[in-house]
Amino acid sequence: MTSVENDRRHSRDDVARTALRLLDENGLPDLTMRNIANALEVRPSALYWHFRNKQSLLAAVSGLILAPMADVGTEGLAARASLELLGGRLRDCLLAYRDAAELVSSSLALGLVEPPIVGRPGGGAPADLWRAAATAVMHFVVGYAFHEQQRLAADSLGLLADADGADPGAAAGDRSPADEFSEALTMIAMGFDAAVAQRAVL
Amino acid sequence: MTSVENDRRHSRDDVARTALRLLDENGLPDLTMRNIANALEVRPSALYWHFRNKQSLLAAVSGLILAPMADVGTEGLAARASLELLGGRLRDCLLAYRDAAELVSSSLALGLVEPPIVGRPGGGAPADLWRAAATAVMHFVVGYAFHEQQRLAADSLGLLADADGADPGAAAGDRSPADEFSEALTMIAMGFDAAVAQRAVL
Repeated sequence: MTSVENDRRHSRDDVARTALRLLDENGLPDLTMRNIANALEVRPSALYWHFRNKQSLLAAVSGLILAPMADVGTEGLAARASLELLGGRLRDCLLAYRDAAELVSSSLALGLVEPPIVGRPGGGAPADLWRAAATAVMHFVVGYAFHEQQRLAADSLGLLADADGADPGAAAGDRSPADEFSEALTMIAMGFDAAVAQRAVL
Repeated sequence: MTSVENDRRHSRDDVARTALRLLDENGLPDLTMRNIANALEVRPSALYWHFRNKQSLLAAVSGLILAPMADVGTEGLAARASLELLGGRLRDCLLAYRDAAELVSSSLALGLVEPPIVGRPGGGAPADLWRAAATAVMHFVVGYAFHEQQRLAADSLGLLADADGADPGAAAGDRSPADEFSEALTMIAMGFDAAVAQRAVL
């Protein structure tokens, strides 16, 4: 089971899908080339038939995580509604897999995946305003989801209950993270609307 | 040099300041209890005189990183200007030390540091709108600075030049990260203004 034929029997997509499954099961710190190779029953070196390095493999996993964004239809929506829909769906994509926000953040920083939202058409809005709003939404959503997933990870280790005193990092009062997220996202979308309206007047 | 007297000679603040220096010199992955103890010439166990666990020590470091936020004066500023000033200063604080965005993000998620901006008075704005805007700004700024610092770390390892093809993660066109950040922050601040104005009309 270590022949070259066996090492090459998996497609690039097989490898990325297996890595995504391992990410979801075990978390990002355990997503090593060795563990991915073991799950595929190949040698670690076999992974380099498909990926030049670990960052490229992780970028393919980020691509799978972000794939549902391509199916979000925004035709006919006002630009503000598009922005809220895309921001909400991006959070859904990131929360769908353990540690996905951190992984996607890293692939985005390395420039190995297309930034979500920013590259989409802005529904007729001025390109510079759409780009600024989409940039704000993308970094807000990735930052927020990373915060949520760090809390989940800490909670699973008993570290949240362990925290000294009160927990100022929790969503304030009795609001759920989903409500807090949505209120903040609306604020950005309103800014986009206001900027577009101001531009139209000038 | 391993007597209990020696182990207790450092104050809690000494320990946190040494850890901050090591963070800036060597990065977050190398910020272990052992390395901090070595730099102080004490046993690792001595650190537990001051901190119940590593998370508490890291939270004290996050507190040092965020300390300049307390000196940002927003009296007399319009709420929107406050928000832009605070967001910009938060980015400055995070960029002042290597890997600070990731470290502060983790302390915030654990609820071990007071969230910056959210806890400040909103200059007379309705509390719920200030909270939503401050939440948007905080997660946007932490997310953006984390992105910038991941790029710095990758660049220092030669990983940015190594990236496949173009670099969609770079600030678009010839805009600097500071300009891109500022445009997106303005968008959120405009949303806050618009929400306050809308509330005043209702």
